[in-house]
Amino acid sequence: MPIFDKKHAFPGKLIIVEGIDGSGKSTQIALLKKWLESQGFSVFFTEWNSSELVKETTREGKKRNILTPTTFSLLHATDFADRLNYQIIPPLKAGMIVLADRYAYTAFARDVVRGVHPAWVRNLYNFAIKPDISFYFDVPIHVACDRILSNRTQIKFHEAGMDLGLSLDTKESFKLFQTKIFGEYKKMQTEFALTTVDATLEIHDDQEIVRAAVKEALKDYSKKRTIYAKRAKVFWRRFTVS
Amino acid sequence: MPIFDKKHAFPGKLIIVEGIDGSGKSTQIALLKKWLESQGFSVFFTEWNSSELVKETTREGKKRNILTPTTFSLLHATDFADRLNYQIIPPLKAGMIVLADRYAYTAFARDVVRGVHPAWVRNLYNFAIKPDISFYFDVPIHVACDRILSNRTQIKFHEAGMDLGLSLDTKESFKLFQTKIFGEYKKMQTEFALTTVDATLEIHDDQEIVRAAVKEALKDYSKKRTIYAKRAKVFWRRFTVS
Repeated sequence: MPIFDKKHAFPGKLIIVEGIDGSGKSTQIALLKKWLESQGFSVFFTEWNSSELVKETTREGKKRNILTPTTFSLLHATDFADRLNYQIIPPLKAGMIVLADRYAYTAFARDVVRGVHPAWVRNLYNFAIKPDISFYFDVPIHVACDRILSNRTQIKFHEAGMDLGLSLDTKESFKLFQTKIFGEYKKMQTEFALTTVDATLEIHDDQEIVRAAVKEALKDYSKKRTIYAKRAKVFWRRFTVS
Repeated sequence: MPIFDKKHAFPGKLIIVEGIDGSGKSTQIALLKKWLESQGFSVFFTEWNSSELVKETTREGKKRNILTPTTFSLLHATDFADRLNYQIIPPLKAGMIVLADRYAYTAFARDVVRGVHPAWVRNLYNFAIKPDISFYFDVPIHVACDRILSNRTQIKFHEAGMDLGLSLDTKESFKLFQTKIFGEYKKMQTEFALTTVDATLEIHDDQEIVRAAVKEALKDYSKKRTIYAKRAKVFWRRFTVS
C-alpha cells in the first residue's frame, strides 16, 4: 500500500529532514531556516515529539518505562497528528514554508526497530501529507556515533534504545540501536524517494547542496502569495547630515 | 484486510460486549460477571477508555475540544493498547476469563462516524486479539435513546457527539450520533460475526441468552487450569455446642 504518494494541494511548501542522530540534520535545517528567512520567506519550524497534547504522557510513560512498542508508536503518532493539524497544515494553507525536524519516517525507522510491523506503522501515518522535499542525511554509523558520543556527556535511556535490552552499556546500546535504525532508513531511501545528502561533508558544503535542492523545489513558489510573506519595502539612500 | 481472524492461544477466555448507549450491555456484562464468579471462575473486568496512561490527556483534550478525529482515534487506540498489554493479556495468560465492556468495535463505530477512514482504524487496532465471544446488543435507536434520556439528567458533550456539529440541541445531537453509530454496528455484525442479542427483551431473558452462549464457549475451558482459579475447599459439618 503506497502512502504519501500524492502531492499536497496547499500553496505552501513542506521540507523535512531525516537521518540518524549525529547526521547533522538539525544543524542543516537551522541553517536553511535562517537562509530562507534572509531571502524574505515566511518560515514555520516544527520538531518531532513536541506537541503539548501528549508531551506529559510520553514523558511519564518513558520515565516509568511502561510503554510497549505499540503504545510508544501510538503516542508518537498522536503527537504527529496533533502537530500536523495545528502546526503544519495551517501555515501550509497560508502559503508558508514549513520546516520539520524529523517526520513520519522517524517513526517508520524507530518503531519498526522497537518491534512494530512495518506495514502497520506506515498505515498508521496514512493521514500525513507528502513533503515537497524529504532530505535524508546519510552518514556511516561510526561517524554519527563519534559526533554524538564526543559532544554529549549523557545519552538518554530511550535515545540509546535501552528499552530494547540490546546492551546494558548505554554507549554500546546506542550504537546497536542506531545501526538498526540506519538499516531502516536504507530501506526507505528508495521506498519514499528520499533526497539523500552525503552527511560526511563539511557543514557549509552540505548546506550548499540543501539550498540548491530547496531553490529547485521553490521554482514554482511565490513568496508574494500570502500576506504572511509580505514585507514592508525599505529603501535606502545616502544622505549627509550637514 | 481481515483482522481479528485468528483464535488466540491463551488459556483464558475473552468475552466482550458492544452496542449503542442504552443497549443494556453494561448491565448484562455486570450480571454475567456475578454469575461467572458464583460458578467459581476467576474473572477480570476492564472497560473502554480507562487506562491511566492517557486518561488525563483524553480528558483535557475533550475539555478544550482540541482533538481532531485522528487524534481522538489515536488516543483511544493508545488507551486500548495499554489495557490490552497490562489488563487483558496477563489474565488471559493466567487462564482467567476477561470481560470487556466495549472493545475495538466501539472505535470502528465511533471513529468512522467522526470521519476517520474505516480501513485505517481497522488497521490501527490490528494488534488486538480476537475475542472468544463478541456480544452485540441490538436495540432500535428510539428504545436506546428513551432509556438514556429518561435516566440521565445530562449527556456529556462528546457522548452526544456535539463535536460533530450535527445539532446544537444535545438530545437531538445524541439521537443523530447514535443513529450513525448504529449504522456502523449493523455493518460490523456480519463483518466480524458478532453474536447478536435482541436487546429489547427483559433483562433476565437477555441474561439467559448471554449465559447460554458463554456456557457453550466455555465447554473446552477448565477453571482448574490456573492457580488464580483455585479456591480453598471448605467443608461444613454440623456440630452441637453442648
